[in-house]
Amino acid sequence: MKKSYISNNVIRRLPRYLRKLDELSKDGIERISSGELGNQMGLTPSQIRQDFSCFGEFGQQGYGYNVRALHREIATILGLRRSFSVILIGVGNLGHALIENFSFRQFGFRFLGAFEIRKDLVGTDIAGYSVMDAAGQDAFIKDNDVDIAILSVPRPRAQAVADTLMESGIKAIWNFTDVELDAHGSGVIIENIHFADSLLTLSYLLSVEGE
Amino acid sequence: MKKSYISNNVIRRLPRYLRKLDELSKDGIERISSGELGNQMGLTPSQIRQDFSCFGEFGQQGYGYNVRALHREIATILGLRRSFSVILIGVGNLGHALIENFSFRQFGFRFLGAFEIRKDLVGTDIAGYSVMDAAGQDAFIKDNDVDIAILSVPRPRAQAVADTLMESGIKAIWNFTDVELDAHGSGVIIENIHFADSLLTLSYLLSVEGE
Repeated sequence: MKKSYISNNVIRRLPRYLRKLDELSKDGIERISSGELGNQMGLTPSQIRQDFSCFGEFGQQGYGYNVRALHREIATILGLRRSFSVILIGVGNLGHALIENFSFRQFGFRFLGAFEIRKDLVGTDIAGYSVMDAAGQDAFIKDNDVDIAILSVPRPRAQAVADTLMESGIKAIWNFTDVELDAHGSGVIIENIHFADSLLTLSYLLSVEGE
Repeated sequence: MKKSYISNNVIRRLPRYLRKLDELSKDGIERISSGELGNQMGLTPSQIRQDFSCFGEFGQQGYGYNVRALHREIATILGLRRSFSVILIGVGNLGHALIENFSFRQFGFRFLGAFEIRKDLVGTDIAGYSVMDAAGQDAFIKDNDVDIAILSVPRPRAQAVADTLMESGIKAIWNFTDVELDAHGSGVIIENIHFADSLLTLSYLLSVEGE
């Protein structure tokens, strides 16, 4: 599998492809042409062929793509067969919303538990897991070789908590705090969810339309 | 101001520029070169010059960009001076997290209130607003000419609720349900927050790094 020189834009489109292929597969569709796939996703067929060519060949000229095989390949490329482990840091409303609505297992992630600094929340239940005391976080990360921490703590504590996570050996932070975290050149991967960026894009589209 | 032929990628970068300029402004920085801005944002200077050239000229050769003027221009382009009105549909954990953590006013939006179908939640408080009965939603949207609805209802109800919103004349839906909504060719703008897409991107980066 070729993996070199994959642009950020292609990477960001892969989850969309995966979602669409999942849908097609559930609808019992076995093969799809780049033309039809493009049509359903608002992309040109050549764009789709180009995207997939980054990773090798998935289709056969004139036969279209095998939906399940393509789904499997993209899932592998995205690391969904690596069974990465995930913990949640901070069990406020957002933490609860994430854990209760998001199916980590469906995407091949192992959710291991949640940590909280507020003593009154330690021991409460979140999606069947008992919330653990943040004091035990460092040992837990080391003992379980945790891959990903979901950061959902109040903004003023974001960088300090991220620092302790990085010191504990976490490999990636999924950041919901809306603070631009500094990885201090540690190589820890930080992926941000910026709600505002999405709303501002919507605002732009609405603004242009109204002219 | 030129607005034609702006690519989706440029539009998606504008909120990031806005965030960075906001930060620079708060730090008391009045001017910045495309080189320094690019350095801080992980973009090339020519990329930055090209992005801004889509909208006209913000900088002066050799003097860099005026931070506040550039911020003002981008905010205007993004429609943040249009004072769009926003309502929330569904006050579960995610709805609460959004309303409590997100400063609509800071971005120039007017938050008007929240609606809920569960009678036991009607009348409860969300960020100082009394939750309204979903039965009154249609009339409220029409009376107040509401622009944007934040959709944060359980997945099985997502499309049905979106349909009623579109019939009521809503102009845009900020969709947190992880369901691909059908706008039925209505022209209603739908902007999706797909948490999974972000986590899968992180998974990809983690996966590649481990090789």
